[in-house]
Amino acid sequence: MSPPQGEINQCVILREKNDIVLENRPIPQLDNGDVLINIKATGICGSDIHYWLHGGIGDFQLKAPMVLGHESAGIVAKVGPGVKNLKVGDRVALEPGVCCRMCEQCKKGRYNLCPEMAFAATPPIDGTLCNYYKHAADFCFKLPDHVSLEEATLIEPLSVGIHSARRANIKSGDHVFVFGAGPVGLLCAAAAKAAGAGHVTIADLVPSRLEFAKNYYTDAQVLLQRPQPGEPNMEYSRRMAKEILKTESLADAVIDCTGAETCVQMSVLLSKSGGSVVLVGMGGSVQALPISEISAREVDIKGIFRYCNTYSTGVEMLASGAIDVKPLITHTYQLHDAVEAFKHVKENRDGAIKVQIIG
Amino acid sequence: MSPPQGEINQCVILREKNDIVLENRPIPQLDNGDVLINIKATGICGSDIHYWLHGGIGDFQLKAPMVLGHESAGIVAKVGPGVKNLKVGDRVALEPGVCCRMCEQCKKGRYNLCPEMAFAATPPIDGTLCNYYKHAADFCFKLPDHVSLEEATLIEPLSVGIHSARRANIKSGDHVFVFGAGPVGLLCAAAAKAAGAGHVTIADLVPSRLEFAKNYYTDAQVLLQRPQPGEPNMEYSRRMAKEILKTESLADAVIDCTGAETCVQMSVLLSKSGGSVVLVGMGGSVQALPISEISAREVDIKGIFRYCNTYSTGVEMLASGAIDVKPLITHTYQLHDAVEAFKHVKENRDGAIKVQIIG
Amino acid sequence: MSPPQGEINQCVILREKNDIVLENRPIPQLDNGDVLINIKATGICGSDIHYWLHGGIGDFQLKAPMVLGHESAGIVAKVGPGVKNLKVGDRVALEPGVCCRMCEQCKKGRYNLCPEMAFAATPPIDGTLCNYYKHAADFCFKLPDHVSLEEATLIEPLSVGIHSARRANIKSGDHVFVFGAGPVGLLCAAAAKAAGAGHVTIADLVPSRLEFAKNYYTDAQVLLQRPQPGEPNMEYSRRMAKEILKTESLADAVIDCTGAETCVQMSVLLSKSGGSVVLVGMGGSVQALPISEISAREVDIKGIFRYCNTYSTGVEMLASGAIDVKPLITHTYQLHDAVEAFKHVKENRDGAIKVQIIG
Amino acid sequence: MSPPQGEINQCVILREKNDIVLENRPIPQLDNGDVLINIKATGICGSDIHYWLHGGIGDFQLKAPMVLGHESAGIVAKVGPGVKNLKVGDRVALEPGVCCRMCEQCKKGRYNLCPEMAFAATPPIDGTLCNYYKHAADFCFKLPDHVSLEEATLIEPLSVGIHSARRANIKSGDHVFVFGAGPVGLLCAAAAKAAGAGHVTIADLVPSRLEFAKNYYTDAQVLLQRPQPGEPNMEYSRRMAKEILKTESLADAVIDCTGAETCVQMSVLLSKSGGSVVLVGMGGSVQALPISEISAREVDIKGIFRYCNTYSTGVEMLASGAIDVKPLITHTYQLHDAVEAFKHVKENRDGAIKVQIIG
Repeated sequence: MSPPQGEINQCVILREKNDIVLENRPIPQLDNGDVLINIKATGICGSDIHYWLHGGIGDFQLKAPMVLGHESAGIVAKVGPGVKNLKVGDRVALEPGVCCRMCEQCKKGRYNLCPEMAFAATPPIDGTLCNYYKHAADFCFKLPDHVSLEEATLIEPLSVGIHSARRANIKSGDHVFVFGAGPVGLLCAAAAKAAGAGHVTIADLVPSRLEFAKNYYTDAQVLLQRPQPGEPNMEYSRRMAKEILKTESLADAVIDCTGAETCVQMSVLLSKSGGSVVLVGMGGSVQALPISEISAREVDIKGIFRYCNTYSTGVEMLASGAIDVKPLITHTYQLHDAVEAFKHVKENRDGAIKVQIIG
Repeated sequence: MSPPQGEINQCVILREKNDIVLENRPIPQLDNGDVLINIKATGICGSDIHYWLHGGIGDFQLKAPMVLGHESAGIVAKVGPGVKNLKVGDRVALEPGVCCRMCEQCKKGRYNLCPEMAFAATPPIDGTLCNYYKHAADFCFKLPDHVSLEEATLIEPLSVGIHSARRANIKSGDHVFVFGAGPVGLLCAAAAKAAGAGHVTIADLVPSRLEFAKNYYTDAQVLLQRPQPGEPNMEYSRRMAKEILKTESLADAVIDCTGAETCVQMSVLLSKSGGSVVLVGMGGSVQALPISEISAREVDIKGIFRYCNTYSTGVEMLASGAIDVKPLITHTYQLHDAVEAFKHVKENRDGAIKVQIIG
Repeated sequence: MSPPQGEINQCVILREKNDIVLENRPIPQLDNGDVLINIKATGICGSDIHYWLHGGIGDFQLKAPMVLGHESAGIVAKVGPGVKNLKVGDRVALEPGVCCRMCEQCKKGRYNLCPEMAFAATPPIDGTLCNYYKHAADFCFKLPDHVSLEEATLIEPLSVGIHSARRANIKSGDHVFVFGAGPVGLLCAAAAKAAGAGHVTIADLVPSRLEFAKNYYTDAQVLLQRPQPGEPNMEYSRRMAKEILKTESLADAVIDCTGAETCVQMSVLLSKSGGSVVLVGMGGSVQALPISEISAREVDIKGIFRYCNTYSTGVEMLASGAIDVKPLITHTYQLHDAVEAFKHVKENRDGAIKVQIIG
Repeated sequence: MSPPQGEINQCVILREKNDIVLENRPIPQLDNGDVLINIKATGICGSDIHYWLHGGIGDFQLKAPMVLGHESAGIVAKVGPGVKNLKVGDRVALEPGVCCRMCEQCKKGRYNLCPEMAFAATPPIDGTLCNYYKHAADFCFKLPDHVSLEEATLIEPLSVGIHSARRANIKSGDHVFVFGAGPVGLLCAAAAKAAGAGHVTIADLVPSRLEFAKNYYTDAQVLLQRPQPGEPNMEYSRRMAKEILKTESLADAVIDCTGAETCVQMSVLLSKSGGSVVLVGMGGSVQALPISEISAREVDIKGIFRYCNTYSTGVEMLASGAIDVKPLITHTYQLHDAVEAFKHVKENRDGAIKVQIIG
């Protein structure tokens, strides 16, 4: 399949730490089962910023220039051989990771744990911040007319929320506690509500974030105090949890979106006996946990790594109005202003929640 | 514990088939763990009508006069020894079945399957249509101030909906199909929505019921045609299912609230591969099922018998506004007009959905 | 990849109903991800016989000549491009169905429900009764040295047993009842035992089958009587179930491997409240079920369609000695005597349990 | 119900830390639903020793003299009013905790999390080391003739194994890794095998324990080295885990029966992606965990607090021969030599695994 003629393919490339440039790259050739997507909108994720500022995350280190971006939606521009589910012109959301389809994890339905996963903008795989992106057709999800491409980019972080609600086994009427009121925390709250949660409480250190959360799928907002100087983490966590429990009841599920050791500790303390703590945030690689609470009250601790089988649910949620993601899109930039957009997120300007790059 | 002095305890008693009378009975003495409830509102259930008209349901046959009613809420009038969770004046919903607490089913958390279950208005256990009802305190659920006693009576049929949504394992974004748009069908639809269902379709033979359903937790309404004269059930079911699938997609879960063989057959045909059919309705005791569809597509068939562990969820749903049951209460009678209320339900007058007896 | 030079590829081909011939076919070319297997042993399945005698099963009708066989093991003769998990000379068991890897069912881990499944010896897909078979490398499972290729062919029917034990959610100490003491019934019993079942009872009409079962992973054997002349199925089933319950207790799980309506009916009646009935056998496409028992006792009915994610478990079971399948291999034929082997199975001669074709 | 006449009721009483005496106490009166058990055999548990030497465990501190012992079996000596499941002379195993039967946890089937649990030999509840013990009849489990009372006492620690296997969701063919080869570790290994585990590895610091384990439901034994002087725990755990993985594969489930921080850390490192770590051992109340591994590989951490619904399974396992507990009973003392028995356990003499007190 030859690419669209006379088109350019501008890409937002991280050459090395701190060095983003816009470059034109060839439009990709399509293999069996692929489609070419004309990317129309892309949200900037914290991980994009992290790669930009640090050149890597954990084991994933940038070794060659890489296109950034993985929260995208666009329009099908070409259809490769063997593709039956899509046609040119279809508007789609992109699930950015393609698994090997052959290992034990893929076959058991937990393909997010596939060791051969190729995930957009995770080195060495190029991301979606470009005009034309080649993708496996079965990881593109058709959108109904009334769901905009801008909204559809939010299905990516929403997928983390859907996956966390599933892993937490949230049921009708459950009490849920969320640490962190950034985009992912807010979408975890929204996904919990959509799964039937009766009461969702969100906690953060930043008052303005809680102010926003008041109108976004949460029933209560808790302003966390900082630890006192020299106060050990576990001591702080016990004190703060006790404080929180003056007004909040123990939760069926606690979802931590901060990665902070203290929040993980409080998560255990705020969980009901037999409840679940879900770890969405990424923080220190070794953390101290109140393990006697985990044992004596049978609290389950569950890690989250990306998501699987969430996109069709996410499309459904946006289509049915179960979740409205539009209020989260606070700022928008054109592709050629990409570096400016990245700076906006880095500096956390003007109450930014989700900054998008369009066009 | 002595009963309230000078009070009467008027009871709606089914003496035998077709013979309901109002009689004054002694106010019950309380044992350990009991409370005395001043019943304020009671919904009439199809089973009450069935006992009245036929004197029994299946193995449960009336052998002595029995008080009717089991969908009730009221105010705690007295508290027996050892009761810690309630005090006089508390407003409560009554879960009408008390299990043995000691058998394998009770200990495993499926107490609705307890063979020693004592369920209100199931012979020989007296029901709740009276002024003063003695009940185990832990089967009384305290209501927040903003939930009325009239609403709270609906937690009983809503419990069937909650239980069916759990047994169907309804998840965010699921497509759900409900057969039967009576009170139980409507509450199954509502419970499915509350559990995250993305699209709920309801089907019935009666246009006015579908008209009501349009504004009650359903996204689509399907008017069922009747079989043609002489058309075999399975043939009709295949034809009708094919018709329905012209506009509806296969469902993740189908909930049958009719008990009709044809609806159970269609339930299987309308289920996705790997989906669930939940049997809420009670109909013919032996029914023909398209078993090759069950096998070749791994459709799970799950029976429902009442419910367990649903009341606190139901209170939460009413309190949070997740489900509004008020529109279902279409008619109200005083206790002394109980026979009139029963006739109203029997004759299905004036678009009655749920008829209540209060006072 | 070119095929082995100078080799012939003799195939057992069903030309049409009742017409099996041996023909030489070209050795297949390998695509990406494929291996070429030199088939060494193949068990004959009831479905092979059914295709031979009737030319089809349900919707799957023979329209062109097709190679039979799908219970096979062999040695890797060639390795296609991109294959990493296997090398020439590896001894492998073949999982005979290759799914599309892209649909919702595949991604959710229930790939046996994939609508695009290509399953050996299910029209129009050729089977494995040949010298050289091309197969997706990830559906070939390496065998430890001490597991013979002959044994390994049994992993296919054992997979049905493993899948049924999983679908029945069999746990340590469970009581399990199996209808049908043919190869699949015996392997369901074995898989139930391996999953921890405390007591497994098997039932059949044929005394010699029960005699064999006495020494094969069952604790009790029940000889079923036939219905009396003119006795309705449901009446017979109730009578026989009552008879069985004189010596057997209700079962946590009942696995029907007969497909007979009466056995399915008895399965429901012999299940505990809250238990499971698993439908392995294929019989009449519409069957009458005691549905009031399913409802009032919350018995789950679960269809089985082939299996998924069972092969590595099956290899492990044979390797660890958890299940010994060798006693089931009662007769062996050479490939050139394939027609004779098929006749042997058809006529059910000499207490045949599993007849194999080798070489 | 009056007690047996002329009988004495000798009890092993912990008066205070380090002070065990034998005293005669009155034979208890029976309430509704109770039976009186003539205790015949009792195993000594690590917790008994801990109460003796330290006067408390965590929040449970001895404030008044308390009878020790909770792993017991005996003969029904009297039957209280309302008891239907037992009669005088029945041989029974005692499940030592009686829950409130009324709270949310009890009703949901997780009664081990009941906050009102009355558990034998957990202050202030008296234990079973006496001649006559009053117990709720439904927590006494009848034994078949061929299961001895001595064996039946082991159902208590075996219950921990059964509960851990359930919480770990162990399935046929699973690889399981157990830390700690004491009685509980061995019984966790046995329960894992009984649940279908294909390969069970056990690890310990003590060679003689591994020697015993070679013949007790384990397929491989790993001798743990101690950390090097000054080596940080996490560093040691990574080094040792790497060493172990030279010969062992990653496990579907890891069960820690040591409570040591290093073993909990290794448990995470030795778990497959998507696997489970079950915390049976009780150690430091706050422990450092490799939380990035938990997140990036979705390892579930599950606490264990005693057990629920395990006793009938345990009786079934002993009755069917699925697990043989007899080899674990290494030493036996008479009731009047109880102090000697406690010393034996404390000093860990003569390769003691389980020391029993009989008579």
